[in-house]
Amino acid sequence: MSAAVSDIPGFEVEATDGGARAGRLWTSRHGLETPVFMPVGTRASVRTVTSADLESLGADIILGNTYHLMLRPGEELIAGLGGIHGFSDWHRLVLTDSGGYQVFSLEPKVDDDGATFRSTYDGSSHRLTPERAVDIQLALGSDIQMVLDVCPPLPAPAHVIGTAVARTGQWAQRGRGHFLARREQLAEADAGFERAQFGIVQGGLDLGLRRESAERTIEVGFDGYAIGGLSVGETRAEMEAPLGAVTEILPADRPRYFMGLGDPAGIVEAVAAGVDMFDCVWPTRLARHGTALTRNGRVNVGAARYARSDDPLDPDFPESPANRWSRGYVRHLLSVGEPAAARILTLHNLAWLFDLMARLRVAIVEQRFEDFRSEVLATWG
Amino acid sequence: MSAAVSDIPGFEVEATDGGARAGRLWTSRHGLETPVFMPVGTRASVRTVTSADLESLGADIILGNTYHLMLRPGEELIAGLGGIHGFSDWHRLVLTDSGGYQVFSLEPKVDDDGATFRSTYDGSSHRLTPERAVDIQLALGSDIQMVLDVCPPLPAPAHVIGTAVARTGQWAQRGRGHFLARREQLAEADAGFERAQFGIVQGGLDLGLRRESAERTIEVGFDGYAIGGLSVGETRAEMEAPLGAVTEILPADRPRYFMGLGDPAGIVEAVAAGVDMFDCVWPTRLARHGTALTRNGRVNVGAARYARSDDPLDPDFPESPANRWSRGYVRHLLSVGEPAAARILTLHNLAWLFDLMARLRVAIVEQRFEDFRSEVLATWG
Repeated sequence: MSAAVSDIPGFEVEATDGGARAGRLWTSRHGLETPVFMPVGTRASVRTVTSADLESLGADIILGNTYHLMLRPGEELIAGLGGIHGFSDWHRLVLTDSGGYQVFSLEPKVDDDGATFRSTYDGSSHRLTPERAVDIQLALGSDIQMVLDVCPPLPAPAHVIGTAVARTGQWAQRGRGHFLARREQLAEADAGFERAQFGIVQGGLDLGLRRESAERTIEVGFDGYAIGGLSVGETRAEMEAPLGAVTEILPADRPRYFMGLGDPAGIVEAVAAGVDMFDCVWPTRLARHGTALTRNGRVNVGAARYARSDDPLDPDFPESPANRWSRGYVRHLLSVGEPAAARILTLHNLAWLFDLMARLRVAIVEQRFEDFRSEVLATWG
Repeated sequence: MSAAVSDIPGFEVEATDGGARAGRLWTSRHGLETPVFMPVGTRASVRTVTSADLESLGADIILGNTYHLMLRPGEELIAGLGGIHGFSDWHRLVLTDSGGYQVFSLEPKVDDDGATFRSTYDGSSHRLTPERAVDIQLALGSDIQMVLDVCPPLPAPAHVIGTAVARTGQWAQRGRGHFLARREQLAEADAGFERAQFGIVQGGLDLGLRRESAERTIEVGFDGYAIGGLSVGETRAEMEAPLGAVTEILPADRPRYFMGLGDPAGIVEAVAAGVDMFDCVWPTRLARHGTALTRNGRVNVGAARYARSDDPLDPDFPESPANRWSRGYVRHLLSVGEPAAARILTLHNLAWLFDLMARLRVAIVEQRFEDFRSEVLATWG
């Protein structure tokens, strides 16, 4: 392994409070503070907002979906238009998933080598292997790419999860080997070339399988480590033990990413266990369904009782970019189907969640994370 | 009539070139340069953008639809939330139509007193009279309101248009009388109260009826004058004579507004005839259908040939707020149904049309309007 493996992205833990970590993560493109929330831009766009809006909101990193982008518009087209950064004119960080999560929800044909699946766009047949997942994400140009893993839809019987863990381990080795070889080639042509690859720990709710998967992934050695296959329907209590089993053995000097988690209670619990990075459609999807995030919990702004409300979406968050509009106005926009409603709520919810992350980080630095956690759980738990 | 009638809005012609006028229009709330284009915010929102966006774009005045707003959310609700300005947090000018245009497209029951129609939202029955149109618009709080006119869907037989002109004249008198009485009352309570009311000239394509309608409207006396019932399907050549017949007798010291016109060729032709104000859904509706306005005409950005284009939407308009995104990116957003496409195109098309208006005004001031007109007609005629 080259020395670069432990350097990209740069990562430093600046403060800890119990298991919670406040850190920094960077590449030469952009740096950010952790814990960090990554908005989901499935198709190279966070729905209803633009890259200009995301800059104004202070977003540092967004997530793109390899499954969607490889099918529409295709990774080669994106590569030809400057990669995902040039294509969407977003010049902070981008993380792409491997496509595995979507593919495994489509009942693919899986063998030891890879998975064959049909496009939801036109029914055409496609194949994803650990090597191809690397190449697609290199073409997309994401700063951080994810290794292809096997994520059976849960709940699943133990032997299915066991097989998934074993295959995830084999694919991790192949994916990592291919990535390192390709990175070396590309870095020879361009000394400034910086790309990272994260491994993924699977294992369902089984502590033994979780530990086994974590150990295998660490043994392969990645630039960061993700926890996959949690927050897929289990209770928060059920999530706690398998999450803790993994974070207690992940290397402390590398970033840890909980895939698909983004609600405030889930975030504080995972931060308590030592997680640094999060992504979820939660805040943006809620926005499109008329829900505002507030210090007092969710507000269904479309409800008739807000028709005459002159309050902003969250009176306790005066920094919201949406505060100039009242609940009454947004309720009107929702009730007549005006697209500005989804935009205003998306701007608000993302700003609100970024603010939560910032306050959470300050709480860690100031050694009062437990108080902050209790406060968040009292509203969102 | 009080002295205020000729003062609100303030209006001054600063330069003329042939029939074309470059002027200024103002109230104490906001001032603007004419010729001016007013984006249409039917339901107190210009689709896909917010009042913050409209400020950034440099919009000076937007149009609201009385028909829609009286039904959803209702003028009393809007009045309770600060009027249309407070409600939508837009603090430049607002012009509202009278509701007549929409009502007459719904096959209403019309008698001498007013029109009874059914709501497209819930089928409920509503009535609009000249007096009620004034009161609704006063409650909405628009800076400029329109008198209720009779606008039969065209083409229509001569006797239908003749009856419409006669009734429009009677309603103008009633509407104006009611407006002046109400304005006097309201100005007694609030010395800073500023509201204007424009009359509307009807008459189809018949020159005699157009002149008769213009004379009757002028005789009643309004704060500005609108040309209604044109740009409803006739050719640009057919429009020329009735438009000229009206503008040549309208008072030169008051603003002139062509209702429902917004394409570049139509605008330059109407400006040539002495019109100062325009509104149309044209640029924003085209945007939502994937069309960008450019110096070379319309571009259907969703077309496959733009899939790999790195050009901005209009390479000849580097000031576009959408220039950071390529045609290829916007084409992708359109092809996968991402809402950011409509937003990016709406921002571009409005900025493009505002730029056209600004260039048009400079051409008038610099006495080269005919060249500018020929240039626009060569592309858009």
